[in-house]
Amino acid sequence: MSELLQNLQWRYAAKKMNPTKSVSEEDLNFILEAIRLTASSSGLQPYEVFVVTNPEIRAKIVPHAWDQKQITDGSHLLVFAAWDNYTAERINMMFDLVNEERGFKNEGWENYRQMLLNTYPARDAELNYEHAARQAYIGLGSALIAAAEVKVDSTPMEGFTPEKVDEILGLKERGLRSVILLPLGYRADEGDWLVDLKKVRRSKESFVTEVK
Amino acid sequence: MSELLQNLQWRYAAKKMNPTKSVSEEDLNFILEAIRLTASSSGLQPYEVFVVTNPEIRAKIVPHAWDQKQITDGSHLLVFAAWDNYTAERINMMFDLVNEERGFKNEGWENYRQMLLNTYPARDAELNYEHAARQAYIGLGSALIAAAEVKVDSTPMEGFTPEKVDEILGLKERGLRSVILLPLGYRADEGDWLVDLKKVRRSKESFVTEVK
Repeated sequence: MSELLQNLQWRYAAKKMNPTKSVSEEDLNFILEAIRLTASSSGLQPYEVFVVTNPEIRAKIVPHAWDQKQITDGSHLLVFAAWDNYTAERINMMFDLVNEERGFKNEGWENYRQMLLNTYPARDAELNYEHAARQAYIGLGSALIAAAEVKVDSTPMEGFTPEKVDEILGLKERGLRSVILLPLGYRADEGDWLVDLKKVRRSKESFVTEVK
Repeated sequence: MSELLQNLQWRYAAKKMNPTKSVSEEDLNFILEAIRLTASSSGLQPYEVFVVTNPEIRAKIVPHAWDQKQITDGSHLLVFAAWDNYTAERINMMFDLVNEERGFKNEGWENYRQMLLNTYPARDAELNYEHAARQAYIGLGSALIAAAEVKVDSTPMEGFTPEKVDEILGLKERGLRSVILLPLGYRADEGDWLVDLKKVRRSKESFVTEVK
């Protein structure tokens, strides 16, 4: 079996992490780089990643996340925070950066910028946020694979009160909304009810349909 | 640089695919398996993947997807289709499968099932669909990495009319809604305006914030 599939099989949502083990800077940077390089709609990368190591701040988040202790037992808490809206400023920021890095303006690309400027900012903020949030999930896909590749455990969490996390991290003032929590760390030697249970997925037959 | 980061750098949204080259069954199955093994909220896998090879059906989709020809120039079109709602039947299907595969009932797991049964089906269908759709994006993250690993080009597309694709593939009757199109194939030797342009991502400094 390929290493990628092995890594996807290896990983699981660790239910108890070892509070004495810490993810190295090297492995952390590898995971962050995998997220940063991930594709997003129109290349806008409409989210940011917060890496929370501060123990007090992580402890403050725990009660707003179903008391899930991986948040404090892990060594790092990643918070995926999506743009609360698509604004002209944000769209231009990304298109300007692309032009700057490529060293020239491409006409098709500029037409595409105008199309986005003419549509996104006029839409309902909630719709735009929802679209931005989806992009963060592509990055989550990369993060889970990257973490597994370096045998770092990760536990994706949607079960938390976004408003509270936004408040604790000051996200609202930055025009961001928390979408996913992802504690990183190492599974505990004991006390994890899930670690030895079989990973179950629907069969290919019930998950994939061929239209020939 | 690690192979994973190299693959993320290598991939791009191919703008023109070579209609004479076809993705092998082996590579296709590898990509599908990576999606199937991907994590999802509560392990529900609330989406399915359609693999459309039929040329007439793919041609019917093109005009509803901004005339993007990769849909027909590629050899396979993956359609990620999310559950239109969370129903008791669907939740029980997945929890029953887990029990069957593991060979026993876990009390905590059964309590969790009840919690989902008590909350998800009562919620607004649109909210549930939106949640399911997000999960498909995690699978997209895996698909993009898997395709790049076997040097298959892939072009994620959100720019299409879901209702039309649903109609063409008969998704509504199956309680599904199309979320993402992902043509698979090989970049054309010429005619792709994007292929030689630099991949641009925000700097780590503007994408990652450390909270120490």
